[in-house]
Amino acid sequence: MTKLPLAGVTVLEFCQYLSGPSAGLRLADLGARVIKIESPKGDACRKLAIEDLWVDNEDSLLFHTINRNKESYAADLKDPLAMVKIKALISQSDVMIHNFRPGVMSKLGLDYDQAKSINKRIIYTEITGFGALGPWSKKPGQDLLIQAKSGLMYTSGNSDNPPVPFGLAIADIICGAHSVQGILAALIRMKKTGIGAKLELSLMESLLDFQFELLTTYYRSDNLPLRSETNNGHTLLGAPYGLHKTRDGFIAIAMVPLNSLAQALNCESLRLYTQQDAFKKRDEIKKIIAAHLINEDNAFWMDKLQSADLWAMEVKNWKALVGEEGFQRMGLVQEIGVEVNTTRCPIRLNNARLYSNKAAPKLGANNDHIEKEFGLI
Amino acid sequence: MTKLPLAGVTVLEFCQYLSGPSAGLRLADLGARVIKIESPKGDACRKLAIEDLWVDNEDSLLFHTINRNKESYAADLKDPLAMVKIKALISQSDVMIHNFRPGVMSKLGLDYDQAKSINKRIIYTEITGFGALGPWSKKPGQDLLIQAKSGLMYTSGNSDNPPVPFGLAIADIICGAHSVQGILAALIRMKKTGIGAKLELSLMESLLDFQFELLTTYYRSDNLPLRSETNNGHTLLGAPYGLHKTRDGFIAIAMVPLNSLAQALNCESLRLYTQQDAFKKRDEIKKIIAAHLINEDNAFWMDKLQSADLWAMEVKNWKALVGEEGFQRMGLVQEIGVEVNTTRCPIRLNNARLYSNKAAPKLGANNDHIEKEFGLI
Repeated sequence: MTKLPLAGVTVLEFCQYLSGPSAGLRLADLGARVIKIESPKGDACRKLAIEDLWVDNEDSLLFHTINRNKESYAADLKDPLAMVKIKALISQSDVMIHNFRPGVMSKLGLDYDQAKSINKRIIYTEITGFGALGPWSKKPGQDLLIQAKSGLMYTSGNSDNPPVPFGLAIADIICGAHSVQGILAALIRMKKTGIGAKLELSLMESLLDFQFELLTTYYRSDNLPLRSETNNGHTLLGAPYGLHKTRDGFIAIAMVPLNSLAQALNCESLRLYTQQDAFKKRDEIKKIIAAHLINEDNAFWMDKLQSADLWAMEVKNWKALVGEEGFQRMGLVQEIGVEVNTTRCPIRLNNARLYSNKAAPKLGANNDHIEKEFGLI
Repeated sequence: MTKLPLAGVTVLEFCQYLSGPSAGLRLADLGARVIKIESPKGDACRKLAIEDLWVDNEDSLLFHTINRNKESYAADLKDPLAMVKIKALISQSDVMIHNFRPGVMSKLGLDYDQAKSINKRIIYTEITGFGALGPWSKKPGQDLLIQAKSGLMYTSGNSDNPPVPFGLAIADIICGAHSVQGILAALIRMKKTGIGAKLELSLMESLLDFQFELLTTYYRSDNLPLRSETNNGHTLLGAPYGLHKTRDGFIAIAMVPLNSLAQALNCESLRLYTQQDAFKKRDEIKKIIAAHLINEDNAFWMDKLQSADLWAMEVKNWKALVGEEGFQRMGLVQEIGVEVNTTRCPIRLNNARLYSNKAAPKLGANNDHIEKEFGLI
């Protein structure tokens, strides 16, 4: 394997929790050296247990998962002596990422103008909940809360359900992914021109970008996207798009022409509808499909659907999933140093899967080495 | 504004629908020139109407949204004469992206080895449903179906709900975002070394990466993540994390210490629980919170929660959202050429928001110009 694409890039991650650290993780996956700059208390995520799971009785499993393949440099940013060292680190790095609340980095003496005066090539990346300015800037930038405010909770579930949150930290993760995009694009320009950049991202803007189809449709039609009465899959798509219950499970059916579906399922009442009805009469049509599919098992229907080459898939849980040969052959799971099995980078490069079994660092684990290497002492 | 960071980068997008085109869109947002290579019938997404909305009675609104700021070059890839021109285009481009089923590009004479023989610097990007090899490789690579198979549908909704799909094309969009990350990292290396790269991404791997917390937890604990009985927000987090119904609406409450919450809400029965109960007794605790919050309106509770500086937010739909000053000040909406209002790039650069009002191209709109410019005729 040749060198990873970001070999030689140094990233300082002044981040906590998920959005910023997920950006740092991907940069590390792709070969960058990522140094977490942590307060003497450490990234608060070290103490955020999910399902009460810990590693070495010290840091949460979540922290380990998202901070693998990084180094930790502990420093009190309010201590002037420590700040001299931090500035020396900035002068020798390529990228900074922080996800403090607006104003915090300015007070510490580390806003973009201050960082640029130390290193004009720096790619300075600021992740907030709602942007640095404006009436929302002081609101808490937390994933579930941003979901609540963004309209997203009216996309999942059926129309008679309450709003339904996405059951994962979608705003954090999508904003982290967008941050990486901005950082790498700015790095390309920096390598060419020697000029750095200030990047600003917010969970809210990223989550609204994620809903671009919905917002565009709303502006055009003036109608709020509506979830279907049953079997909702996507507010903007017609029948049969969604999940359908069978006698022993569930089958997802995607964009399938109604006449092909009627024939494959041998469903007489479905034959009465034309493709023009698919969106306008989706509730009616989905009820007909539901009443028909409940009579037989998954295997029976999947056989019919696959024989007709129609887009359908059985619903699985993780246990069924990880038992499949297809999953195992993907080689997506890697063991990292501390008896943690987690996912690898999802991007394959030149036929290789990118593994890294370097465990998350203990708080300040790399202080001595970094101080020597960067000439801080 | 200085030049956009990807100015000078040329991308050939051999893609349909959403995953590949969403990658192309972000590259265009950041300054790349993106040329869609379309069959004489065009990207099938041109005919995929969402909510039956069309632009100029010709192409779907969805197509317009996701293909703004691109050019279109129509070519029949089975015609040897057209292929000569395509190869000449490849020789002068930096990036190729395709999302054909495995094997299609090989048959056309455009797999990585063939492309590399034309241009050794090319960043070749292949997006599939499940990877090019393995027992799943022939399965349909469609968003809802991948969600069904990935376990994701057991994260949203409550434990007595059926599996619940995410109501947006999460696999397509997250895989498109990962593709951009890989492409830009590979471009950085290419600019330095002159060596191109083959990148492979799949909707399934991207969607499993998105669930890294769940898979890591599952491997560690051997327990399937379970949705809470009521008010589910995240399978791995304890009470009160989730949505809570009030007398007139819904409030999202994130990670909040139980004793602070009991005090802010003046909820006696909640005082009986310690923080150690938050995950293990989350169903019990959430029911207590639900029974308490239903007695007053959103405004009443939000006042209490905000006064105590606790992480809470009212749930909004798009109509309420876009009416807020905070939304308007974000300047996230832009009008593109064809009376389409859509979102801009979510990344801000040097204090500027990145707008582009160039509408999606009609099929083959740029053939003449591209043929002259690249010397194809």
